[in-house]
Amino acid sequence: MQTAMIQDKIVPADELETVYFDRGIFFGDGVYEVMRSYNGKLFALEEHLQRFAGSLSGIKITGVDIEMIRSRILAAFDAAGIANAKIYFHITRGSQPRDRVWNTALKPNFFLTVSEATDNTEDKTKGIAVSTYPDWRWKRCDIKSLNLLANVLAANDAENKGCGEAILVDEKGLITEGAGSAFFAIRGQTLQTAPLTANILPSITRDFAIKAGRNIGLEIVEKSLTVEQATNSDELLIASTTQDIVGVVRFDDKIIGDGKPGKYTKSLTREFLSFTV
Amino acid sequence: MQTAMIQDKIVPADELETVYFDRGIFFGDGVYEVMRSYNGKLFALEEHLQRFAGSLSGIKITGVDIEMIRSRILAAFDAAGIANAKIYFHITRGSQPRDRVWNTALKPNFFLTVSEATDNTEDKTKGIAVSTYPDWRWKRCDIKSLNLLANVLAANDAENKGCGEAILVDEKGLITEGAGSAFFAIRGQTLQTAPLTANILPSITRDFAIKAGRNIGLEIVEKSLTVEQATNSDELLIASTTQDIVGVVRFDDKIIGDGKPGKYTKSLTREFLSFTV
Repeated sequence: MQTAMIQDKIVPADELETVYFDRGIFFGDGVYEVMRSYNGKLFALEEHLQRFAGSLSGIKITGVDIEMIRSRILAAFDAAGIANAKIYFHITRGSQPRDRVWNTALKPNFFLTVSEATDNTEDKTKGIAVSTYPDWRWKRCDIKSLNLLANVLAANDAENKGCGEAILVDEKGLITEGAGSAFFAIRGQTLQTAPLTANILPSITRDFAIKAGRNIGLEIVEKSLTVEQATNSDELLIASTTQDIVGVVRFDDKIIGDGKPGKYTKSLTREFLSFTV
Repeated sequence: MQTAMIQDKIVPADELETVYFDRGIFFGDGVYEVMRSYNGKLFALEEHLQRFAGSLSGIKITGVDIEMIRSRILAAFDAAGIANAKIYFHITRGSQPRDRVWNTALKPNFFLTVSEATDNTEDKTKGIAVSTYPDWRWKRCDIKSLNLLANVLAANDAENKGCGEAILVDEKGLITEGAGSAFFAIRGQTLQTAPLTANILPSITRDFAIKAGRNIGLEIVEKSLTVEQATNSDELLIASTTQDIVGVVRFDDKIIGDGKPGKYTKSLTREFLSFTV
């Protein structure tokens, strides 16, 4: 039998709830999604479920029924009764005494919360400042895993600088994406963002932003930007599930455009919102 | 108020224990150590505490009293009464509703277990096989954080191949270290291992293995090895807290030396054990 200790209390390990032995906490051995609803309607449920299935498969968590996940999401959303909701859920590989080698008989742990989506009207109206941070994330950012410490450190660095998002820059000086968002530049008639490789999350809002860009007549360029190219762009913006599209008006010390969200950013925001109704 | 869901049960979020909102599970926002005792005596306690303090500082968890951690370890070790014990402990930034930006008033969560150390006499006698895996870890492996999914995937790949450890290889084809160990080669009269950079954990057992190497007259070379250099070495070995020094007798498909732990590996093992008494 193991002896355990929680803060300063010694307890027999077998008296602890299994959540204390969740592989999610020991290793970040799990994957997650964040979704939202607009006016009582869930947005992009199928896309999120499909990506979630891909993340599960990416880390070899097997035997999860995606239809069951769908019904749990719907049940919790219904029970919460929040029109503009943020839904977070994760699945970890399960609970067992700490061992990197997983027990193949483990039952995955599912956890979900529904809360009020944060109103970001002010950010959208005024635009936000962003600051750069080294991209310290792991090399499989195409998997939406619980290994998010690099994102957390970047986001808090931005917060301390009074910025709304951290923009991650790799060793070659190329921008990958935001700590919790996709990153776009408007350069002339083009909407530019990094291509989807193993170091980029296949963001669902990124897809919708690209669709919105095409709809308003922009040419799409999937090519990484340097910091210099970004700061010389006509407009900058980020895209994420919780904030949809928000203009970036300051990038580190550089003011972008005239310091207000640009005309294409505003068009993209309007076009994006048309997808949600 | 948030609505939460655990497996298929809907519950008010404020009725859940705070462990469900641990930043450790949401983000891997914490750091850990693994120590052991030999015959009732804790090994390298000061070194582990010092590294732990460095990891806490590396991710900006402040206000943790290392003397308090020391007394908790001693109290739990004493209560468990296990002569050859493995002690695991972690500290996470604390519990709060999921937000990348941390609440600066959070109280860190401490968790510790003491269990029987696994007897690895057979591995030490016969040596182990290892297999290579891409090094997908984040770029701050010098911090011993809870972001260990890359290590978990590598360790399970090795397990599936009947190997005792995964050896991580970076994009340049250089060996960094094992998924849970430092990696060494004996080449002539030299003991070679990767230098301590941001992509290598400053392993305490690595330090003791180097000290043991010097004591038995080997020259120490801190230079990364290619896979080819590794497989052409006279002897290979791994070093970790839980296993101390174990010879590697097969590396992917290549048999190393005569397929048994070599003479220097045996000398290093003996020398290392002399440090623990």
